[in-house]
Amino acid sequence: MAKEITNRTDNYSQWYLDIVKKAGLAENSEVKGCMVIKPTGFALWENMKDELDYMFKETGHVNAYFPLFIPKSFLSKEAEHVEGFAKECAVVTHHRLMNDPNGNGVVVDPSAKLEEELIVRPTSETIIWDTYRNWINSYRDLPLLINQWANVVRWEMRTRMFLRTTEFLWQEGHTAHATKMEAIEETLRILDIYATFAEDYMAMPVIKGIKTANERFAGADETYCIEALMQDGKALQAGTSHFLAQNFARAFNVKFLNENNKEELVWATSWGVSTRLIGGLIMTHSDDDGLVIPPKLAPTQVVIVPIPKPDGIINEAAEKVMKALKAKGIRIKYDEDAKKRPGFKFAEHEMKGIPVRLGIGKRDLEKGQIEVARRDTKEKVSIPIDGAVDYVVNLLDEIQDNLLNKAKTFRAENTAKVDSFDDFKDILTTPKYDLGNSWGGGFISAHWDGTTETELKIKELTKATIRCIPLEGEEEGGECILTGKPSARRVLFAKAY
Amino acid sequence: MAKEITNRTDNYSQWYLDIVKKAGLAENSEVKGCMVIKPTGFALWENMKDELDYMFKETGHVNAYFPLFIPKSFLSKEAEHVEGFAKECAVVTHHRLMNDPNGNGVVVDPSAKLEEELIVRPTSETIIWDTYRNWINSYRDLPLLINQWANVVRWEMRTRMFLRTTEFLWQEGHTAHATKMEAIEETLRILDIYATFAEDYMAMPVIKGIKTANERFAGADETYCIEALMQDGKALQAGTSHFLAQNFARAFNVKFLNENNKEELVWATSWGVSTRLIGGLIMTHSDDDGLVIPPKLAPTQVVIVPIPKPDGIINEAAEKVMKALKAKGIRIKYDEDAKKRPGFKFAEHEMKGIPVRLGIGKRDLEKGQIEVARRDTKEKVSIPIDGAVDYVVNLLDEIQDNLLNKAKTFRAENTAKVDSFDDFKDILTTPKYDLGNSWGGGFISAHWDGTTETELKIKELTKATIRCIPLEGEEEGGECILTGKPSARRVLFAKAY
Repeated sequence: MAKEITNRTDNYSQWYLDIVKKAGLAENSEVKGCMVIKPTGFALWENMKDELDYMFKETGHVNAYFPLFIPKSFLSKEAEHVEGFAKECAVVTHHRLMNDPNGNGVVVDPSAKLEEELIVRPTSETIIWDTYRNWINSYRDLPLLINQWANVVRWEMRTRMFLRTTEFLWQEGHTAHATKMEAIEETLRILDIYATFAEDYMAMPVIKGIKTANERFAGADETYCIEALMQDGKALQAGTSHFLAQNFARAFNVKFLNENNKEELVWATSWGVSTRLIGGLIMTHSDDDGLVIPPKLAPTQVVIVPIPKPDGIINEAAEKVMKALKAKGIRIKYDEDAKKRPGFKFAEHEMKGIPVRLGIGKRDLEKGQIEVARRDTKEKVSIPIDGAVDYVVNLLDEIQDNLLNKAKTFRAENTAKVDSFDDFKDILTTPKYDLGNSWGGGFISAHWDGTTETELKIKELTKATIRCIPLEGEEEGGECILTGKPSARRVLFAKAY
Repeated sequence: MAKEITNRTDNYSQWYLDIVKKAGLAENSEVKGCMVIKPTGFALWENMKDELDYMFKETGHVNAYFPLFIPKSFLSKEAEHVEGFAKECAVVTHHRLMNDPNGNGVVVDPSAKLEEELIVRPTSETIIWDTYRNWINSYRDLPLLINQWANVVRWEMRTRMFLRTTEFLWQEGHTAHATKMEAIEETLRILDIYATFAEDYMAMPVIKGIKTANERFAGADETYCIEALMQDGKALQAGTSHFLAQNFARAFNVKFLNENNKEELVWATSWGVSTRLIGGLIMTHSDDDGLVIPPKLAPTQVVIVPIPKPDGIINEAAEKVMKALKAKGIRIKYDEDAKKRPGFKFAEHEMKGIPVRLGIGKRDLEKGQIEVARRDTKEKVSIPIDGAVDYVVNLLDEIQDNLLNKAKTFRAENTAKVDSFDDFKDILTTPKYDLGNSWGGGFISAHWDGTTETELKIKELTKATIRCIPLEGEEEGGECILTGKPSARRVLFAKAY
């Protein structure tokens, strides 16, 4: 079964699609660019969502729901926003179908044309700030800390499941504050939540940083991001948190009376992560045998396989282990399908990334043992069945830690400090075969003169972009790798998804 | 504050809108027919959703996600479905905007016209069954028990928040089965889940029944429903579960190999409840002072008010009670705003339907007491602070029970067996002032000759429709109230939302 997956080094992008398909995460739909998220993929998203939702609520945010449709005119109200967002989107122009007079199904009823077209939300700043105008009058109404879980649509020409789809699921937070400082603090608080979630749950290490003006969200004064490194040496923007200053408040005339009874414009943030995270998760951990999922997010954490097939004694032992692990909150399944051989099941569970597999066989049971196989390292050991519960609980933690450490090591091995443009180009194109990398790339920390012109020139020459100006980078004078002009600090380059 | 709510008997529909607004549940948006669900309203929906989701999962269902858009041609594939559903809907015809050449914002780019229009899903049978074709090959792939939480759009001309909106949130289950019997069992299993949820969580008693052919879902062989009675004597269809037979399998060519290796069409069900339930909840329990929410679903179950305002000793006592109740899983808040007087807060919490209010004052504390006020009956008692936790936990259960019993009594008082058309009309138009009812109506159990013609005639004459043929009604011969033709059983009539 695993053989159906293309090797990463042969064709990385096919490997990715094979995993999405064979692990049953998603598939393309009949609607161009839109995917169907299958039950296993959706269960993964639910686990991510639950944890993020908890973290948002713990920091005082509440959920709400705003309309799917945005009147076309709203998009033009914030000048930069319209440039960045209003272009490739789904436009609703009519509200009725009618029977085709020629008898061929249904056609659009021309008499049901909307006075003003509606846009399927590509993001909701405009409609939300139009609403906030009525919700905010005084400093007592602030801060307003609202999040929304929703679907959004951006008409993408080239799509790839989870990473870039026309419709995707996400959360978008939209907060309103009385002061600039508070809004900036909120932007950073969320960035920290995103980074914590990525590292502690997805086991995906990220670099926190600031986007350059060129990569900034349309309508933001500052965009903060978390950037992760995928196994093919490309970066993935995994989440963004925007300091919107008073831009949307100005565009939608949202003012409040401050404590001195003076009218002021409201300060804003917005922030989001999406089903794209699932793409990041896949590409951070998976291998040529299939998906690898960190235990904390795995829909099924442990699977029990009877060897060679279910029978009374084995079922009883399995039942007992299962009950004990369920009581510890472990998500566990018993694969009692008698029609499939154990070897087939092993490959299938590996493909689906179930972190721990327990093999229960009669001969093992006579010795009071069961077999434990871990998905991350493929190691197998026999352990006493009596200690199985504690062993498995610890093993899940160990796997979680190991995945994060492995990803951190990979990132360290694929991050280079570079001081010449030749070296820069070299790294982007030179495979590191010893690391199983046939494509080159990785993060490159280099000096840049701070201009959009240079940034675009480097992109044109190498396809690499500035992923971010790392928050934790040290101040260090140097010279721009392209122009030689002075630079105050290194920034992080990479080719990116 | 409560005075801002219109009395039910003066103007029921304004009363409803006042509650939705003043309790902060939702508001109309700038997009015609689409509402904004505000944080309190959304928290209520989240509580409903969590419980339903748990019940679905306990019965073997899993969640997935299908595209928002449906190709226009899909809608015509199931002949009845297109008649019932494909008409009033949002049609996406273009995928790009461009800057207006005249400089007035953005306009639709005429060159970005879609080859085939996309419909924003009004319900997802078509796209899901188109997908199932690839998922189902053999009896081993069945049953397929999938649910989706999603937004849907039906272009409604007359909308009312929660009850009928252009966009609404719902869950839609779509299951596939090997046999007719299994599909019917599933349809009924879900109907039971809906009824259990309505009664045990919403405290809203419902009648389970079958829709007449005329009221059936477009594409179903049989539609089962739960019907609730609102305080104005109108019925609310609160959930439907459809036995789709092989209609969608036939339309989308979904076949499976049975155990004898013979090809058969797959049997189907679909079922849904929506944010409409929130409208039903409001209209079942609320009164002229505002919202009343059953404790099990209340976003905040208990609020503590310091009397007359927060101070050290009161805060300490409140903190202690709060901690103890939180430990019991109670959702509790401390309203420590020193700027508002207790009386103002009381009215506000009543308006928002918080089931239990605890008043903590210094004089009471000296006596070791606190005041407990329940929202449903407005009763207040002083109780020893030491027993407060147990008292409140029990009280929440008692309120939940009381609300259900009250609603059952109301329904009993407003359900009539009728055997003549004059009596039928009378009941629909005669107010029962002694029951605070200024509008007439209620459920009417009457004989009907089984024809759509008679059903429509009765609707034309009285505006009452057949809500359902109750599952639990007894067989009882009689004569149709309109035509006098023979009838085998009574059906349930009412004016309806």
